[in-house]
Amino acid sequence: MADAGKARIGVLGASGYTGAELVRLLLRHPRAEIALLTADRRAGQEMRDVFPQFAPFALPKLVSIEGLDWASTALDLIFCALPHGTTQKVIKELVARTRGIRVVDLSADFRLADLAAYARWYGHAHQAAELQGEAVYGLVEVYREAIRAARLVANPGCYTSCAQLALIPLLKAQAIDPDEIVIDAKSGMTGAGRAAKEEMLFSEVSEGIHAYGVGHHRHMAELDQEFSRAAGREVVASFTPHLVPMNRGILSTIYVRGLGGIQPEGLHAILLRYYMNEPFVHVLPLGTMPQTRHVRGSNLTFIGVAGDRVAGRAIIGAALDNLVKGASGQAVQNMNLMLGFPEAMGLEQVALFP
Amino acid sequence: MADAGKARIGVLGASGYTGAELVRLLLRHPRAEIALLTADRRAGQEMRDVFPQFAPFALPKLVSIEGLDWASTALDLIFCALPHGTTQKVIKELVARTRGIRVVDLSADFRLADLAAYARWYGHAHQAAELQGEAVYGLVEVYREAIRAARLVANPGCYTSCAQLALIPLLKAQAIDPDEIVIDAKSGMTGAGRAAKEEMLFSEVSEGIHAYGVGHHRHMAELDQEFSRAAGREVVASFTPHLVPMNRGILSTIYVRGLGGIQPEGLHAILLRYYMNEPFVHVLPLGTMPQTRHVRGSNLTFIGVAGDRVAGRAIIGAALDNLVKGASGQAVQNMNLMLGFPEAMGLEQVALFP
Amino acid sequence: MADAGKARIGVLGASGYTGAELVRLLLRHPRAEIALLTADRRAGQEMRDVFPQFAPFALPKLVSIEGLDWASTALDLIFCALPHGTTQKVIKELVARTRGIRVVDLSADFRLADLAAYARWYGHAHQAAELQGEAVYGLVEVYREAIRAARLVANPGCYTSCAQLALIPLLKAQAIDPDEIVIDAKSGMTGAGRAAKEEMLFSEVSEGIHAYGVGHHRHMAELDQEFSRAAGREVVASFTPHLVPMNRGILSTIYVRGLGGIQPEGLHAILLRYYMNEPFVHVLPLGTMPQTRHVRGSNLTFIGVAGDRVAGRAIIGAALDNLVKGASGQAVQNMNLMLGFPEAMGLEQVALFP
Amino acid sequence: MADAGKARIGVLGASGYTGAELVRLLLRHPRAEIALLTADRRAGQEMRDVFPQFAPFALPKLVSIEGLDWASTALDLIFCALPHGTTQKVIKELVARTRGIRVVDLSADFRLADLAAYARWYGHAHQAAELQGEAVYGLVEVYREAIRAARLVANPGCYTSCAQLALIPLLKAQAIDPDEIVIDAKSGMTGAGRAAKEEMLFSEVSEGIHAYGVGHHRHMAELDQEFSRAAGREVVASFTPHLVPMNRGILSTIYVRGLGGIQPEGLHAILLRYYMNEPFVHVLPLGTMPQTRHVRGSNLTFIGVAGDRVAGRAIIGAALDNLVKGASGQAVQNMNLMLGFPEAMGLEQVALFP
Repeated sequence: MADAGKARIGVLGASGYTGAELVRLLLRHPRAEIALLTADRRAGQEMRDVFPQFAPFALPKLVSIEGLDWASTALDLIFCALPHGTTQKVIKELVARTRGIRVVDLSADFRLADLAAYARWYGHAHQAAELQGEAVYGLVEVYREAIRAARLVANPGCYTSCAQLALIPLLKAQAIDPDEIVIDAKSGMTGAGRAAKEEMLFSEVSEGIHAYGVGHHRHMAELDQEFSRAAGREVVASFTPHLVPMNRGILSTIYVRGLGGIQPEGLHAILLRYYMNEPFVHVLPLGTMPQTRHVRGSNLTFIGVAGDRVAGRAIIGAALDNLVKGASGQAVQNMNLMLGFPEAMGLEQVALFP
Repeated sequence: MADAGKARIGVLGASGYTGAELVRLLLRHPRAEIALLTADRRAGQEMRDVFPQFAPFALPKLVSIEGLDWASTALDLIFCALPHGTTQKVIKELVARTRGIRVVDLSADFRLADLAAYARWYGHAHQAAELQGEAVYGLVEVYREAIRAARLVANPGCYTSCAQLALIPLLKAQAIDPDEIVIDAKSGMTGAGRAAKEEMLFSEVSEGIHAYGVGHHRHMAELDQEFSRAAGREVVASFTPHLVPMNRGILSTIYVRGLGGIQPEGLHAILLRYYMNEPFVHVLPLGTMPQTRHVRGSNLTFIGVAGDRVAGRAIIGAALDNLVKGASGQAVQNMNLMLGFPEAMGLEQVALFP
Repeated sequence: MADAGKARIGVLGASGYTGAELVRLLLRHPRAEIALLTADRRAGQEMRDVFPQFAPFALPKLVSIEGLDWASTALDLIFCALPHGTTQKVIKELVARTRGIRVVDLSADFRLADLAAYARWYGHAHQAAELQGEAVYGLVEVYREAIRAARLVANPGCYTSCAQLALIPLLKAQAIDPDEIVIDAKSGMTGAGRAAKEEMLFSEVSEGIHAYGVGHHRHMAELDQEFSRAAGREVVASFTPHLVPMNRGILSTIYVRGLGGIQPEGLHAILLRYYMNEPFVHVLPLGTMPQTRHVRGSNLTFIGVAGDRVAGRAIIGAALDNLVKGASGQAVQNMNLMLGFPEAMGLEQVALFP
Repeated sequence: MADAGKARIGVLGASGYTGAELVRLLLRHPRAEIALLTADRRAGQEMRDVFPQFAPFALPKLVSIEGLDWASTALDLIFCALPHGTTQKVIKELVARTRGIRVVDLSADFRLADLAAYARWYGHAHQAAELQGEAVYGLVEVYREAIRAARLVANPGCYTSCAQLALIPLLKAQAIDPDEIVIDAKSGMTGAGRAAKEEMLFSEVSEGIHAYGVGHHRHMAELDQEFSRAAGREVVASFTPHLVPMNRGILSTIYVRGLGGIQPEGLHAILLRYYMNEPFVHVLPLGTMPQTRHVRGSNLTFIGVAGDRVAGRAIIGAALDNLVKGASGQAVQNMNLMLGFPEAMGLEQVALFP
């Protein structure tokens, strides 16, 4: 790698929130050099014009993807933070025109292994089916080894990362009833992106809370796939997302029924054991529930387990920062694995609370 | 009633949020005269010193309950917005020392009809057991007629009002499985009261969300009682409260399973019919979910029903303002019934959004 | 007036925040009937589709201004809450096609009496110059009598109402130095309107504060005009607006120097006297500063005066709700005067705090 | 220094916000070892019980200052984040009982060099007068060299740091009129600390803004001292603090009059030159104003200059994070100088926006 052992990194879609979060993390990553930043609508501008917090830092000017000479960029790895749809086309092209480049895609485009499921949820055939075949689902705590070797990693969604980290170990252990899972999820506003929409204006979303996409949120396809893989049978969970007047954070409150007489203590023990050596998942003491603010700005996920008063049921809480462990931090964690860096490199920030 | 047909009203505990909300509503009630305001720790001060929004209005000075000559206050009705515990003692005494006075109690002290349940949940015997016997549970949409005749009404809790308005009609109609109810509730911060506690400071609760009291919240006793009455059998629901960084509002997202093959359309129809003529409960079109901000400051509850993708299940949303329909508005609605005023009098405010 | 003494009222631009606030107030106004609601981009929809808080209320469907038969609407008064620019054209046309209609315009289009100043600030000639000649500036506390007789009232801006209510009495009394006025103004987000702009997204404006339009905000033209009228000489004040992460409210912190040795007590006395009988301006005790939250949702303005430690200087604070006294409440107050109703009718709401 | 070149550091008052922020920064400081954490009321608890964000980290248990054997702690440097009053006593004792220890005090106790001024503002004689004599005022950008050699550094206040960084260079250059300075300051809620007070509850301070301490805020003594030193004459500025519903950030909007015909361009040039090589102060392009959110969580201060439309006047904006550059970040910057570490070590975090 070119400059003193640093990898040359590109960020496609740097003018969105996950793009900016990648830049925040990469600026302080000892082995990364930010070599390319694209933002079609802001091409020609400086990053500081789009995100003033970067004013003191030297960064490449924003350029357009159109007409980019991929080969000459000499990149080692690209983060793709583009909207659904364009992503497939762009990644297909850049993989074709470069050699040895690695890609971490933050969109939903490569998360579904089943092309038929993709077509059903998105209403059209996948446009890079052959690449989809090799894409690895990038939840590190589940697919660590496959990620190391992957050329293309599909970074998980923020809602789904949160729910999976809480439930995958329990489903794998067949400790909970796969037919009785209710996930009530609450997200901060950055999860909705930076596009100018009336319903995301401050005055529309402050001082209140509401559910949305009830019964038919697209994230469910990803949950179905991963929960079913973990359980070894089909799993369809209830999932309701809500918008909370806060910038960052996802809290999943999950209602489960234990199998085979397992008690909340047992569920807690399974999670503790599963995450014992994980740097970014922390299981709280039994009965303690997580708060999103305590992981803000960090790559951590906090998980808590409490007994329900309804016999046989338990309540599991999971909290992460949707822009970090739910998106860009997870992506950097994937990068670290793919490029052979220490997994936690550049991700050691302590949460910013208050 | 003394002054031009106006009822003389007292508010005990006027320095808290529900007390202030009572004053806000009563100031504009055509048949109410605010004749007494108590606040032990602020006795001697003006209401404007405690709540500056009342600066332009003439109000009685705050006095202490200690040493009050109840008989000479010549009150027609008293709202009791005191903390749990003192309430029983105070109401017992004021009822003993006055004749014909009516009481709406906003605490939890008289909500549980079963004295054994009370003792179990609160850890001590009820101190006004005989009064408890005559107390009427003040959810108007369920107990309207009994409330008209009551001397003592136990105003429902904010969380429980929200969940009950969504579920009572369905339980009465035996349309949902009483063993499969999950209530995920989200509340604004005023629900926690005005006492100075570290965990309620702005910097502790803004920019984040968390569950609390998981598995053992005291509100559950009230839910158990009313759900069981409605269903005609014992009902124990899962209930998890959360704190949201907003001032007002409760949103209950409720997961239910229909009985006898009933579909979400059927549940929606039951609710529509039940609330057809109710002035303060509005059922949204099927598939539309309520937002707390759209009922802010009003006495309205919005209810929505949507089908879940898990076959046989539905998601019900209910939103109200915890200080109005969840407390003081409901209390005034009770007062209107008890004093023979039109039920909606003084409660016609349109929600304040944005 | 048609229905039982009710005036038929139209609201042009009902899908914006000031439009919705007019509807909130008019729905509860005893002498107003909402007879027309326009919203070009939402024409054909119900008001509840645009603002769900109106779901329980019967309201006219939204229509487009294009092709409206003004004469047949039989309106007594129209509130015009349209954007700058279209306003002049629309009002010119509706005045031409109707007889006896009264207009309260909430835009800035008719606020500047000097057509040259208008052209200078807005970069083009006024398109309804003859109407501008008859327009009355609608700050009731200053122009009450002229407003009663006016056909066209130019409702003041929110920032400028707040600063004027604090300073006009002092400038009229020649009690402060007109060359030494610094107005540091802070506004809630609804002041920026409901147009979908990136810089108004929740995540862009929460958890922070910033100044904008420094040195060249258009509101200054209106301030210059009114301050100069009051002082009887040219006045150019420093004015810096800020955006605060809250929905409603404007706080003006104003730094002044007394003239002729007048002390803060003297300034306070002038304001107390000026507003002694005003229903909607309340002067706090000397040394007490206003908070925007204590006037939220009400038509009140709170004003406070405190001495500065710099000899001869004082600090004046003024707080109002930008959507009520700063826009729609003020407009209804103007309507009441124009139609001969009691001035405070429909505006008695007590502030919603917390 | 003991462990592999790491300095042993103590934090007195670790259960407050500045204490927690010190821990956040020190945990990732390559040369610091957190060796002592005190918190009298929480003694015996773990840091994670007081601030759950530290759950994944190994930290010393909280202990009480009472009975601490200072000598045996073998500390190299102590941060003192105790309340005003106790601070003097504690520092006096620990300096007496240790040798070679360095102290950075985050309270106001040692900031005033003039003991008479101290007595006047605080109402009692200083209780460690001899230590006060040697204390160095810790605004690095002004007193860097003196800080290196200091045993006791008085870390500046958050409001005053913000105003000083904007104005000291201009006062030193005699570019602005010292008699015409108006500072309108806005602070996030963490500036008020973590003590449980009614007026700091979420519902009391969200959705609104207000000024406080008008005319007599204690921070003014510190401003007077430093402004007068910089100007070489007595300076008394107008200063009004406000509370904004956000966690972090101070924005100072400052109104000044240029001297000798200097224009805003000239003021901007002076600031640019003064901070050219400073790692933590960034001057924005002329006409661009700072936003607090763009420095959130970082040690940066952003400064902007714009011309006012009032001839000869300019508006200066300065933004910093009150817990970082306004307190704990500044304190670590002082520590770095005092212990001979690179000045920016451990302070390179990029701001967390959104």
